Amino acid sequence: VRRLDLPILVERARRGEQLAVARLISLVENGGPELPAVAAALAPLTGRAHVIGLTGPPGVGKSTMTSELVRQLRAQNRRVGVLAIDPSSPFSGGALLGDRVRMSEHATDDGVFIRSMAARGHLGGLAWATPHALRVLDAAGCDVVLIETVGVGQSEVEIVALADTTVVLLAPGAGDGIQAAKAGVLEVADVFVVNKADRDGADQTVRDLRRMVTLGVRADGGTRGAPTDAGWRIPVQRTVAVRGEGMAQLVAVLDAHRRWLDGSGERERRRLVRAGSEIQAIALERVRARLDQVRGAGGVPELASRVLAGELDPYRAADELMARIEPG
Amino acid sequence: VRRLDLPILVERARRGEQLAVARLISLVENGGPELPAVAAALAPLTGRAHVIGLTGPPGVGKSTMTSELVRQLRAQNRRVGVLAIDPSSPFSGGALLGDRVRMSEHATDDGVFIRSMAARGHLGGLAWATPHALRVLDAAGCDVVLIETVGVGQSEVEIVALADTTVVLLAPGAGDGIQAAKAGVLEVADVFVVNKADRDGADQTVRDLRRMVTLGVRADGGTRGAPTDAGWRIPVQRTVAVRGEGMAQLVAVLDAHRRWLDGSGERERRRLVRAGSEIQAIALERVRARLDQVRGAGGVPELASRVLAGELDPYRAADELMARIEPG
Repeated sequence: VRRLDLPILVERARRGEQLAVARLISLVENGGPELPAVAAALAPLTGRAHVIGLTGPPGVGKSTMTSELVRQLRAQNRRVGVLAIDPSSPFSGGALLGDRVRMSEHATDDGVFIRSMAARGHLGGLAWATPHALRVLDAAGCDVVLIETVGVGQSEVEIVALADTTVVLLAPGAGDGIQAAKAGVLEVADVFVVNKADRDGADQTVRDLRRMVTLGVRADGGTRGAPTDAGWRIPVQRTVAVRGEGMAQLVAVLDAHRRWLDGSGERERRRLVRAGSEIQAIALERVRARLDQVRGAGGVPELASRVLAGELDPYRAADELMARIEPG
Repeated sequence: VRRLDLPILVERARRGEQLAVARLISLVENGGPELPAVAAALAPLTGRAHVIGLTGPPGVGKSTMTSELVRQLRAQNRRVGVLAIDPSSPFSGGALLGDRVRMSEHATDDGVFIRSMAARGHLGGLAWATPHALRVLDAAGCDVVLIETVGVGQSEVEIVALADTTVVLLAPGAGDGIQAAKAGVLEVADVFVVNKADRDGADQTVRDLRRMVTLGVRADGGTRGAPTDAGWRIPVQRTVAVRGEGMAQLVAVLDAHRRWLDGSGERERRRLVRAGSEIQAIALERVRARLDQVRGAGGVPELASRVLAGELDPYRAADELMARIEPG
């Protein structure tokens, strides 16, 4: 992309042209030198979309849930973006249109933007590229952006850092799973969904979750606050996504959470933390790049040799290294 | 620890006094302001120990293996350090003497230094504190330091970054496990051990591993090189650690690997990469601390607000942030 094309591309994306959106996401995914210019062009257009993260164990029905949420939101004529994060794939993206095959029902709908992304990119995957892709979809006028990811390890932590509202999906009979996951995925939920709620054990799973919510699972403090105190009681919604049951209610719950976020100031607070983390991450990445570029005396290889020889300890070596990079 | 005490403490550790070693490790684990001074005092005393990482799935007998290796090495009158990394524990260390209960056989042996460490410390756990603890044990004159960890997720990657020799333990009948783990733990092995080799399926597991070694599992390049090309053929050693069977042979294999590392220049190469990574990590941690300290205009919270308001993109914000920190 030549620099002159960028304003045109952004303007086309803003109007909701699928190909322009796809091209911008590819651009930011590649992490090339255009990234700062793209970010600058997008900045004034962002901040409006409601970002909803969906996570949960494999087999719980996340893809179906995502597709049904898109259907509900489209019925209300809302523009929807979908980022499907695949932690098992070392490859990212490809064309937006190609990804639409994944949700063939929405493939011909110009109000839906779907993108698959690999969790592991060359600079840390989800943490790296997803905020950029989010901004593109936000600038493209999406009212809602859904981020769908498998709830394993790092990914649910990262989804929380990105989403306004985090939805944790569970299937009936996940009782033991609930205990096991307690320290992780359950603590990040703004909304619980028990999907496949027509199966045996659904009542028990709903009861278990409600009990945990009442006991204050979310008393974790940190950047997530204590929503029960601030007036948000984590709901437990039953759905059978494959038949569309409970989906309208779920959309109402998500909208209620968005209103609560806005009214309580929590959305602003979460977004501030998120923006601060991203700024710091970019700054550190730049410092790392500069450290790598120091050559010869005072460069990492030479300092490492001196540490191995016992002439220098790693702390003094780090001091010497930092003295070699320029400020600003 | 007052600054004046440090040379005395280091001298006592160098002579192999258990309490001095324990105190130094606690000091580096706490990550306090003494860290650079401790690192400086230790630097001239390190670089001699053969660092051996032991990893493998739960239940494969890593603790027994570690204990038996200690017994073998002590029979040869070698001084041995043990760092047992517990990835499930959020708590670290405690006194060295307390940890010795874990291996009661060696509890009264002044030539054995045993320390349990949590994998997750306040600054990233294993990656953070273990190199420091290693240096203490190295400076204390340990001929061999064993790092024992559960081979899950990040830990086997980190053990490779620390160990001269990485030993991967498997149990018989781990055929499916071998396939599953192929991309991870198997690629880091310098030595395979099939423990519990008196059980059914041991022959098959040994055969499977030998076939994989022959097919060049280690053709991963990277910082680990291609040992088969350079003259190291990854051995597969059978043991029944609980009865001491195969243990003398395993020690011989480990010594052979140390000789190969020294003779081929691979040990130096691995240690250079490791020292370089550590220097960079310390430098970045210092930059991060400085970024956090920038207050008011140009500080992270103010910049984040401007990003949210669409006045600034994260890249320009990062530039502004970096302009606020001083060099050197």
